[in-house]
Amino acid sequence: MPRIYIENLGSHVGEEIRISGWLYNKRSSGKIRFLVIRDGSGLLQCVMMKGTVPDEVFNRFDMLTQESSLNVYGKIKKEDRAPGGFEMEVSNLEIIQVAKEYPITPKEHGVEFLMDLRHLWLRSSRQHAILRVRHRIIKSIRDFFDNRGFVLMDAPIFTPAACEGTSTLFETDYFDLGKAYLTQSGQLYGEAGAMAHGKVYVFGPTFRAEKSKTRRHLTEFWMVEPEVAFNDLNDNMELAEDFLEYIVSSVLKNCQQELKVLERDTKFLESVKKPLPKISYDEAVEILKKKGIAFEWGNDLGGTDETVISEQFDRPVIVHRYPAQIKAFYMKRDPKNPNLALAMDVLAPEGYGEIIGGSQREDDFDALIGRLDEHKLPHSAFDWYLDLRRFGSVPHAGFGLGIERTVAWICGLEHVRETIPFPRMIYRLNP
Amino acid sequence: MPRIYIENLGSHVGEEIRISGWLYNKRSSGKIRFLVIRDGSGLLQCVMMKGTVPDEVFNRFDMLTQESSLNVYGKIKKEDRAPGGFEMEVSNLEIIQVAKEYPITPKEHGVEFLMDLRHLWLRSSRQHAILRVRHRIIKSIRDFFDNRGFVLMDAPIFTPAACEGTSTLFETDYFDLGKAYLTQSGQLYGEAGAMAHGKVYVFGPTFRAEKSKTRRHLTEFWMVEPEVAFNDLNDNMELAEDFLEYIVSSVLKNCQQELKVLERDTKFLESVKKPLPKISYDEAVEILKKKGIAFEWGNDLGGTDETVISEQFDRPVIVHRYPAQIKAFYMKRDPKNPNLALAMDVLAPEGYGEIIGGSQREDDFDALIGRLDEHKLPHSAFDWYLDLRRFGSVPHAGFGLGIERTVAWICGLEHVRETIPFPRMIYRLNP
Repeated sequence: MPRIYIENLGSHVGEEIRISGWLYNKRSSGKIRFLVIRDGSGLLQCVMMKGTVPDEVFNRFDMLTQESSLNVYGKIKKEDRAPGGFEMEVSNLEIIQVAKEYPITPKEHGVEFLMDLRHLWLRSSRQHAILRVRHRIIKSIRDFFDNRGFVLMDAPIFTPAACEGTSTLFETDYFDLGKAYLTQSGQLYGEAGAMAHGKVYVFGPTFRAEKSKTRRHLTEFWMVEPEVAFNDLNDNMELAEDFLEYIVSSVLKNCQQELKVLERDTKFLESVKKPLPKISYDEAVEILKKKGIAFEWGNDLGGTDETVISEQFDRPVIVHRYPAQIKAFYMKRDPKNPNLALAMDVLAPEGYGEIIGGSQREDDFDALIGRLDEHKLPHSAFDWYLDLRRFGSVPHAGFGLGIERTVAWICGLEHVRETIPFPRMIYRLNP
Repeated sequence: MPRIYIENLGSHVGEEIRISGWLYNKRSSGKIRFLVIRDGSGLLQCVMMKGTVPDEVFNRFDMLTQESSLNVYGKIKKEDRAPGGFEMEVSNLEIIQVAKEYPITPKEHGVEFLMDLRHLWLRSSRQHAILRVRHRIIKSIRDFFDNRGFVLMDAPIFTPAACEGTSTLFETDYFDLGKAYLTQSGQLYGEAGAMAHGKVYVFGPTFRAEKSKTRRHLTEFWMVEPEVAFNDLNDNMELAEDFLEYIVSSVLKNCQQELKVLERDTKFLESVKKPLPKISYDEAVEILKKKGIAFEWGNDLGGTDETVISEQFDRPVIVHRYPAQIKAFYMKRDPKNPNLALAMDVLAPEGYGEIIGGSQREDDFDALIGRLDEHKLPHSAFDWYLDLRRFGSVPHAGFGLGIERTVAWICGLEHVRETIPFPRMIYRLNP
């Protein structure tokens, strides 16, 4: 009998099929036995009546525990009251393995307990939904860039030098070449790619050895970084707007069921439409002052500041033109005010903070040399990067979007630890 | 004037447009100046006639060197003799930057010289073509799995213990938790994912600190690893067949121009159709013996052995059921012969060697414990993995495909170093 996935049941109504999966739930009512089976693609209610199956098969119901693996056989019918809208009339049931005392029960568990059992916790309905949304977000990111002619540019994980300081870098011995550092950003490599392919995106894991124990920090997280030759700050902001609208609308279109499981209020997601509000750093400071927050011009926006600013808007807000002193060496200065960098951050609504950071890049050789000196960075480590300004330098811009913060925002999660299959934090390297 | 990408010129014939890019080539013929511009998306021949543009603009031609950046303005017309099939009649030309002595010239350069200049070498036509094929291969891999309902399962890069021995692992200090090791494979995590989502694929960078200086080895390489609950070895082989056919046909359909630049004979690619030949390890040994190669049953196939075997076929060949002693602990034994593992490798044609390795996994708890003991692996490190056999164990199978070897094969390259933007090898960590 053919094995069918639960998500495809719609085209098998009236047929005798097999479902292979795990027991999610069961209950009895007189001579009827209900089993809810999960197969990874969905849930299916299966009904077994005493007398319609051999007693031997009927009695297997009693042996089944949560997460026991099994095959069920039977006819599929539409049943609007059942989860998923279908039901199976069981004609046979084979137990593959009885799971003994599955540790995650419907009762409440502590987070550390669940994190220790992350390999099993993934099966729970909330975690299942989150990782499906993550999948959709990543797919929509790639589709967005692929559809616009961007070329994927995998940046190296091992780097010889720090992009911005070494204190938060993981390092490893690298044969006879000394130390290699794990990348914090593929941007500089993406810039080289943009000069070769015009439009590229870097997409991979990045690493920060920060001793931060906040709900927004992982030591290992994924980032996508588009970089476009001939784009300026305005083009960059427009790209970010189109990008966020595309991602969110793709999730809304494809993940309604998951968002329901997560009890996500989608009101804030539905308003993620172009144009996004754009305010300068100066205007952001004004907002903070009006709200009575003691904030000094020239400081970076903290988590609370970001929350206060984003609360003024019903959708993500772009903050642009930051004080150059708090931004990276490679950012271009505003020609109208050299104290400002042509930087842009996107703050997510509902207190989720910065999800995008980007800028127009310094494309002038001499200016870039000056920046390296100001930041006390050695020219030698950046000699190859300087080549991009020696040989056909052009204006260009790009940004980075953190996947886990985006998943947390779209799913409405309190902590990024649930946004990735196996999170790595300062105090967690297991399982 | 709107900026148009060269790849989109087809819908702008007869229009006055702007192209922004870099000088690829130039030549003079009497009062005509020809410039070939690259913008990352393609090449465009631009023609400038003395008298039709101001002399000041006309004379800028003389200043232009290879890789100088510029804007050209003019009308687009169809011109079958020009590369790409279009030509621009230049009405204006702005120089952005004159590149001084671009180090990569049309003459021959040594590989180490080019590798030191990898950030610029990426602009050369062969390298440009290779990374476009890489992009297409990765896109087709993701599309293949996404279209079949697989869920992306990003495995962690930092792992607490070795999957198979520690001698070839990169390690890093991990806060107060001791050492973390960089992943060699996401498979074990993929198995946990398959129990939660049914069908998953892990896709990310993997690392091997092997002191191999061969043309097939990188220290950092990308791998995709599908894992499917309830699949057996036969299902696994069928999935690999469908997969390879899909990837190759997608490249043939979308990358004809790139394959032409690479002078790739596509004969061997066109025959990559299901069914692929399937031979057992025993049959592979017979082939070797018939060819007069001294090969002892029980040994692993070496590079030369793989080449000899693959030469017997016009498409990739699947070799299955290897001696268990040379395969990993997690592979299931053949119930018909416990000396054999239910393993499968796919050997690419033309001497490209193994591109896929996979197996049905051991799903029996006690048998898996026995394997750990045979391989002298500590139970404690695999306790979470054993949980997958404690709680609803099911048959399952999967495989891994190495991206760089696949790119090398499809592009017909001698060495994997050209298959990734910034290759990392035992003696190379730069740029």
